[in-house]
Amino acid sequence: MIAVHIEAGRVSVRRAARPSRGEGFALIRLLVAGICNTDLELQRGYYGFRGTPGHEFVGEVVEAETRALIGKRVVGEINLACGKCEWCARGLGRHCPRRTVLGIVKHPGAFRELLTLPEHNLRVVPARLSDEEAVFTEPLAAACEILDQVRLPPGVRVAVLGDGKLGLLIAQALHASGAAVTQYGRHRDKLRISAALSVETRIAARLPKRAYPFVIDATGSPEGLQQAVQMTEPRGTVIMKSTVHGLVPLDAAPVIVDEITLVGSRCGRFEPALKLLRSGAAQVRGMIADEFALADAPRAFARAAEKGVLKVLLRP
Amino acid sequence: MIAVHIEAGRVSVRRAARPSRGEGFALIRLLVAGICNTDLELQRGYYGFRGTPGHEFVGEVVEAETRALIGKRVVGEINLACGKCEWCARGLGRHCPRRTVLGIVKHPGAFRELLTLPEHNLRVVPARLSDEEAVFTEPLAAACEILDQVRLPPGVRVAVLGDGKLGLLIAQALHASGAAVTQYGRHRDKLRISAALSVETRIAARLPKRAYPFVIDATGSPEGLQQAVQMTEPRGTVIMKSTVHGLVPLDAAPVIVDEITLVGSRCGRFEPALKLLRSGAAQVRGMIADEFALADAPRAFARAAEKGVLKVLLRP
Repeated sequence: MIAVHIEAGRVSVRRAARPSRGEGFALIRLLVAGICNTDLELQRGYYGFRGTPGHEFVGEVVEAETRALIGKRVVGEINLACGKCEWCARGLGRHCPRRTVLGIVKHPGAFRELLTLPEHNLRVVPARLSDEEAVFTEPLAAACEILDQVRLPPGVRVAVLGDGKLGLLIAQALHASGAAVTQYGRHRDKLRISAALSVETRIAARLPKRAYPFVIDATGSPEGLQQAVQMTEPRGTVIMKSTVHGLVPLDAAPVIVDEITLVGSRCGRFEPALKLLRSGAAQVRGMIADEFALADAPRAFARAAEKGVLKVLLRP
Repeated sequence: MIAVHIEAGRVSVRRAARPSRGEGFALIRLLVAGICNTDLELQRGYYGFRGTPGHEFVGEVVEAETRALIGKRVVGEINLACGKCEWCARGLGRHCPRRTVLGIVKHPGAFRELLTLPEHNLRVVPARLSDEEAVFTEPLAAACEILDQVRLPPGVRVAVLGDGKLGLLIAQALHASGAAVTQYGRHRDKLRISAALSVETRIAARLPKRAYPFVIDATGSPEGLQQAVQMTEPRGTVIMKSTVHGLVPLDAAPVIVDEITLVGSRCGRFEPALKLLRSGAAQVRGMIADEFALADAPRAFARAAEKGVLKVLLRP
C-alpha cells in the first residue's frame, strides 16, 4: 500500500507495509481524507513531526474484533487515550497525558490506504451522509467543542472572527445551537457560505469595541486574540480557537479591568458534529476547494497551503 | 483641609476646599488610608491621572442624608455607578460604563481629610475591627472576588503565585474558603504571614508543571501569566490578578491544547471581606510596613515604592 510521509519539511509518497491490527483495534480502508492546517504545520516542522500525517478521514472497516463493525463506513476520534488514568475516568481521554494522536503524536495518520484505530474511537457514519460531508466530522467536532465548554444562552450575541475553514464551521455550529452569530472575515466568497445558512456576516474592516458577550477567535493570526478581547463586553468570554505558534501579545489590563474570561478550546466529541451534518444544519460541501489522489499528496499539500484555499481532500 | 495631589509624576500636599456633599452622598472624615500599587501607578503616569488618589480608607461619616449613618465608622466601595444602566440593573455597577472610581477615575480620592461617596457605597465597620484592620477591606474584597467568579470545590488544590500584598490576601481568602492553597513567593518573611494561618508556602525556585486545577497569578510581573499557565492542569483555570501595563507575552498553544481557562479579576463586593476580617480568618496586621501623616504623603509614597515593602498607611 502507499502512505504519505513527512520528513524535514518535505511531503513524499512511499510504499509501506500493511499495518498490523493490535488488540482492540480495527483496520480501516481509507475512503477520503481532509488536509487540515495542523497537517501544514507538521510539514513546517512544528512538533518535530516525522511520519504519516492525517487525522480527518472517512474509511471502511476491513478487520475488527467487533464483527458488526466490519464493512461499516466510519469516522474516528483522533486521541488514543490510555483508558486507565484519572482523565480517562472523567471521560476526558482527549486530555489523557499518555495519549497518542492519530497523525499528530506517535500514531501513524490517515493519509495512507490502510490505517488502524481503537474500535471505541470509531463512529459509524449515517447512510444519508456522503463521504465528502462525513470527512468534516472531526473539524466540526472541534467547532462544537465550544458548546461543551461554555453555556451560550439562547439568542445570545456571538461574534466569530475569521472566515477560514474552522471559522466557517464554528459559525455554523453556534448558529445551529440558537446563538445570534455575526461572523467577521475578509473574504466575501467565504462569508457567502455562512450567509447561505442565514448567519449574519460582515467584512472585518472596523471591528466594534466591547460589543459582544461572546467572541470566538478563529483568525489563525497572532493579532486575533487581542482583537477578540477588544470586541468583548465586560464579564464576557473569548474562546481561543487560533492555534498560533510562539508568543502572542496580550494586553492583560482590559482582560482584568473588564473581568473577561478566555477559554482555550481544541478537539471535541464527534456525536454533536454527526448530528449537525445529518440534520443538514451544517452545510460543508461549499467548503471543498479541491481534491487529489493520495499519490499526488505533495501537490495536494501545496494547494492546501495556498492563501485563501479552503478544504483539500485526498482519495486513495 | 489638606489633600494629596498627583501631577506629572509628583506627589504633593495642598490645601483644598472642604468638599460639598451632592445628593445621596455622605461627607466622610478620613481616619486611615492605605497606599495601593495602583496609587503608585497613578504616580508613574498611567491613565494620565491628575488629582487626589486613594481608594483604600476607613472614615467617620460627618454629614449624610441617612441620619443613622452620621458618626458611623465606614469603608466604601470605590466604583460610583450610574444606577440606571443594564450593568447596574444586573448588580454589576463595578462594570457600569459611566462609572467614576474613587481616587482613580474622575472622583477625588481618599488621601484628604474629608471625602465624599454615595451613601449606598458605604459599609459600616463592625465595632471589633480596628481601623488598621478595616482599611484592608477594599484589597481583601478584590481577593474575595475570585470566589464570586469561579466555583472552587472544597479542598481543591490552588496555587497562588506571588507574595505581595494582593497575593497574601488572596492566599488567606481562598484558604478560608476551604481550598488547599499553596502559595509560591520569593520572600520568606512575607510567606511567613500566610504560613501563620496554616497556608502551605514555598519559595518559588522551581515551579511544578501542569500541577494545579486552579492557579492565581498575583506576581505583578509580565512573566507571571506564562508561569501560571505552565502550572495549570488541562481544563484548569488561571485567575489573572496581576495588573501589568503594556503587552504581556502569552504562549497560546498550551492554553488551547490543554483547554485552559483564563479569568480576569478586579474589584469585589465588600461583604465577604468584612466577614473574613471580623471572623479573624484574615489576619492583616502583619502586612502593615509603615505609616505616615497625610502631610508626609511624598515620603509615604516613596516608602511604599521601595522593593519588598508591604502596606503603607496614611493618617490625617
